[in-house]
Amino acid sequence: MNSIKVMVNGLPGNMSTKAAEHILQDSSLKLIPYALTGAEIEATETQIGSETVRLIQPAERQQMIESIKKAEGMVICVDYTHPSAVNDNAAFYCENSLPFVMGTTGGDRIRLLETVKKSEIAAVIAPNMGKQIVAFQAMMEYAAETFPDVFKGYTLEIKESHQQGKADTSGTAKAMIGYFSRLGTPFTKDQITMERDPEVQRSKWGIPEAYLKGHGWHTYSLRSEDGTVFFQFTHNVNGRDIYARGTVDAIHYLARKIDQAAKGRVFTMIDVLKGV
Amino acid sequence: MNSIKVMVNGLPGNMSTKAAEHILQDSSLKLIPYALTGAEIEATETQIGSETVRLIQPAERQQMIESIKKAEGMVICVDYTHPSAVNDNAAFYCENSLPFVMGTTGGDRIRLLETVKKSEIAAVIAPNMGKQIVAFQAMMEYAAETFPDVFKGYTLEIKESHQQGKADTSGTAKAMIGYFSRLGTPFTKDQITMERDPEVQRSKWGIPEAYLKGHGWHTYSLRSEDGTVFFQFTHNVNGRDIYARGTVDAIHYLARKIDQAAKGRVFTMIDVLKGV
Repeated sequence: MNSIKVMVNGLPGNMSTKAAEHILQDSSLKLIPYALTGAEIEATETQIGSETVRLIQPAERQQMIESIKKAEGMVICVDYTHPSAVNDNAAFYCENSLPFVMGTTGGDRIRLLETVKKSEIAAVIAPNMGKQIVAFQAMMEYAAETFPDVFKGYTLEIKESHQQGKADTSGTAKAMIGYFSRLGTPFTKDQITMERDPEVQRSKWGIPEAYLKGHGWHTYSLRSEDGTVFFQFTHNVNGRDIYARGTVDAIHYLARKIDQAAKGRVFTMIDVLKGV
Repeated sequence: MNSIKVMVNGLPGNMSTKAAEHILQDSSLKLIPYALTGAEIEATETQIGSETVRLIQPAERQQMIESIKKAEGMVICVDYTHPSAVNDNAAFYCENSLPFVMGTTGGDRIRLLETVKKSEIAAVIAPNMGKQIVAFQAMMEYAAETFPDVFKGYTLEIKESHQQGKADTSGTAKAMIGYFSRLGTPFTKDQITMERDPEVQRSKWGIPEAYLKGHGWHTYSLRSEDGTVFFQFTHNVNGRDIYARGTVDAIHYLARKIDQAAKGRVFTMIDVLKGV
């Protein structure tokens, strides 16, 4: 079996580096030693395990990608860059016949979809690559659609903890609010209890020292009006490995879709999960 | 609006009594002061709040039901009796045009469905009347069907606590095993941690004193192979109010279906939840 060639763009970022490390560990994938990077990056190369990856500036990317494609053939791009780069990068991938897995959030998402649909390439676009979390969100969405108001009269509490640097409320928690509201427990973003203090995270939440700088813990609690029934759903993620594993799965899924001649198609993490 | 007349059979049992109490509290329902009971019951009446309910022995039930129907018109029966009575009671309800909500477990379930389908009546048959728990089970079933193996490589732990008298493993926990197996974490009944010791339930689980004699607590924990991801689902039920509330909802649902001329139809708690 030929290995699938993958270019990880956005190096040397945290998430792109983690994804590249997981790609290196997958024997059916081949990390190619080039990566698109931002104009603000001064480094010309970065190290991923034993691999030295050459960083390509925007000004030289067109010329470089042509020679890379000549040498490597079909290349799948993984994009963990910056919200401001999302639309421009997508256009670049489409114009250069580079199928891609987009893990970067932000940008104009509608234009992003349109760019791919008008193109000859296929892409997986997933603001959250954590498969199990995406599955849990889909379960909640199913419940909200199928059993509206089943938790009517219940009291909801949402708590989340993330590394100190994260200023905004958890996007996952915000998405969950929508489902819980339809399930009969209306809730607003301001009611979410956010924890950003590393000392409290360690002592009260029990978050391991090593992950104080990178974690996403969420707990949703529901209590019936009379107090006799209690439901609780928790998903605690330490570090970024879950997202890197999901990225690798998305690459394999996209490669299968390319083999099936998918063109102008956008796939989501739900498609990757279903595997069809 | 005319109130819906309801006869609760199986009095003076724990669950039938709880259901009758909730029916009394619902102003659109009218508890009729008669109840079918077992031949082994010596009492001739029982007290539900301020209502005295006359207990009807099997030998006199045919004659009594005819006069009750003459006096009351349409009556919905609620059945919380005994596994050994399930099929005989269902046949009696069908022969006497008594739509029913069956909360009793056991008996020959296939014959039970056939009895209703061949009849002119409609019934709600639900081994678990806890709406929120049924909804959670449906979410798990949806996930198992839609995202097989999404938790592959994860380690599963299941813990449940019930009152000391309950000898067998939780039926809900056993049903969950099936879903978790399809989600990638195979598990057997013997791996479930069962707690039946009231002292441990109080001191370690924090189960309130008042509910040591009647509770069902369940926790399912999933941990990824590398330990960085942790999911936990908990549903803790104290007492029987959740089931009584579900019974009342099932009565209202069934009354609506009767208005829509449903005949020979069996509805489940999922139908009650969907409300259509």
